[in-house]
Amino acid sequence: MTGPLTYRGAGVDIDAATRFLDAIGAVVRSTHGPGVAAHGSQFAGLIRPEGWEQMGSPLIAATCDGVGTKVLLARRPEDFEGLGRDLVAMNVNDLLPVGATPLLFLDYLAAGRLDPERLEAAVRGMAAACLEAHCALLGGETAEMPDALGDDQLEMAGFAVGLVDGDRLPTAALRPGDAVLALPATGLHANGFSLARRALLERGGFGLDDHVPELGRTLAEELLVPTPIYVDAVAHLLAGVEAKAMAHVTGGGLQGRGAAVVPEGLAMRIDPGSHPVPPVFDLIRACGEVDPAEMASTFNMGLGFLAVVPADQAAVAGWLHVGEIVDGEGAERVAIG
Amino acid sequence: MTGPLTYRGAGVDIDAATRFLDAIGAVVRSTHGPGVAAHGSQFAGLIRPEGWEQMGSPLIAATCDGVGTKVLLARRPEDFEGLGRDLVAMNVNDLLPVGATPLLFLDYLAAGRLDPERLEAAVRGMAAACLEAHCALLGGETAEMPDALGDDQLEMAGFAVGLVDGDRLPTAALRPGDAVLALPATGLHANGFSLARRALLERGGFGLDDHVPELGRTLAEELLVPTPIYVDAVAHLLAGVEAKAMAHVTGGGLQGRGAAVVPEGLAMRIDPGSHPVPPVFDLIRACGEVDPAEMASTFNMGLGFLAVVPADQAAVAGWLHVGEIVDGEGAERVAIG
Repeated sequence: MTGPLTYRGAGVDIDAATRFLDAIGAVVRSTHGPGVAAHGSQFAGLIRPEGWEQMGSPLIAATCDGVGTKVLLARRPEDFEGLGRDLVAMNVNDLLPVGATPLLFLDYLAAGRLDPERLEAAVRGMAAACLEAHCALLGGETAEMPDALGDDQLEMAGFAVGLVDGDRLPTAALRPGDAVLALPATGLHANGFSLARRALLERGGFGLDDHVPELGRTLAEELLVPTPIYVDAVAHLLAGVEAKAMAHVTGGGLQGRGAAVVPEGLAMRIDPGSHPVPPVFDLIRACGEVDPAEMASTFNMGLGFLAVVPADQAAVAGWLHVGEIVDGEGAERVAIG
Repeated sequence: MTGPLTYRGAGVDIDAATRFLDAIGAVVRSTHGPGVAAHGSQFAGLIRPEGWEQMGSPLIAATCDGVGTKVLLARRPEDFEGLGRDLVAMNVNDLLPVGATPLLFLDYLAAGRLDPERLEAAVRGMAAACLEAHCALLGGETAEMPDALGDDQLEMAGFAVGLVDGDRLPTAALRPGDAVLALPATGLHANGFSLARRALLERGGFGLDDHVPELGRTLAEELLVPTPIYVDAVAHLLAGVEAKAMAHVTGGGLQGRGAAVVPEGLAMRIDPGSHPVPPVFDLIRACGEVDPAEMASTFNMGLGFLAVVPADQAAVAGWLHVGEIVDGEGAERVAIG
């Protein structure tokens, strides 16, 4: 090709990016409460931090996370809508263990070539999840990256900001006998997909559209279920109970994330009969001959969020009482069974 | 391969990720002032929003941006260090047009396989840039994404949060005669690289290591110069002048970003003799036969940041007086010459 080069000819269509921003404008604005400040700048989103005046020591909490290789399984618009929900969930749920209330979310979407249908679906999912998390989808970046990413490659990263009173951080000392509460997971959420894909698709020989009797649905339907937004459930817990420690069960799995909240000399014992384990985990274990300890340090094993509370406060609507804090003997910090 | 599958065998080395986090711990903490709250949680960073009590109407400002396809040119550790600086600059400079002061920065780094040397260099650059921007590198996410990204592919996204008093947003009406001030760009910064690569590497036939007489250095040295941090220069401006409008000159170029701050009926006239234009822009134009209007709507053309101030306040140390606001006649909103 000869003749004058243009940015569009070089693979970056600024007009398409502008059309995309126009198309998603209404759905993004649907997440904007009265705290979002209208202003003419294209550079930064602005929002009022409601409630600071009532806090003894206001702190800003910030998180960053992506959806990992779960993105490889998405094909239909509704799959990308689900990934949008995952992206918000992975970030706002990470605000909750410090007791923070979500305030805003921003997304970064990058692709070799912008596919408006996929991206609009992802933004719809993000907006719905932000409404559920009571936070504003305040902005983001959509980057067309020819050569750096393949046309079909999509990178999704998210960032969330919340507020918490530094005088009310969950810092109470854990003691033997404390109860371990949990919120059920809907499935894998957005962690461990590299292992799950190898176990199920390569070793197991399953296709994404195969109906799997053990799961009662297709593999794609099972694996692409979005991560729940735990904001309301944690707010409900904290309204009645003083949580001593909390964990969002993500990378590192139930073992890694559980262990991180248990101090030296103690352990967390999870009663396997206390909660249902989604059958997808046993299918992964069987197909990949995965060691149970490897499973527990990669996947959430059915428990998406943990809270440690005093033993006499273990009955909370919507939460499962799944175990207790015990004296540790130097073995695994989280013992299942 | 048969036998038990592991997460590491599936391409995700959690131990390597942990070693990386240990290796960068000290450099990250070097950016933490007394406002960063130490706490045991792995989930969210916490920081005190200093100074909000003195604000009439405190607002949180948030930005998200990446470095685009500039990442494709990086090969040596110092190149990735420079990209780390770019990533912070692209985000904290976006906080400045609304008058916000940077408070925190978070990064998202994703690769098919984690390369500790590259990633540590990027984090060193980010930390140095955060120190220069007076903000904390509060956290981030480093994602190993086998299959989703090639081993050598690297995705870099960033996110910055700042504070601004809603009673002091730059909102004064522009008038003909207002002065346009600018901060010089160091080069392309991190925008327009898809066009620059095609023009220089494909059409021009240059190699990255070719010494280019017009540039006085190699092409790689020219293109990889990091974006400046404009935080101190803007603070200095605002200490003495009431800026009516400001713009960080990024995607959309001098034309797009300049036009966005000029209201209907007015135009911005830039005097081409008022400032040096780095020779790389003329080289791109010549190699790619790029139309001058396309150049100005893709690149910063040597002006990295714009501020519109009253005519009698145009003399500010460190800032170039590059033009003025004039009556517009429906033509280009930004006229160069």
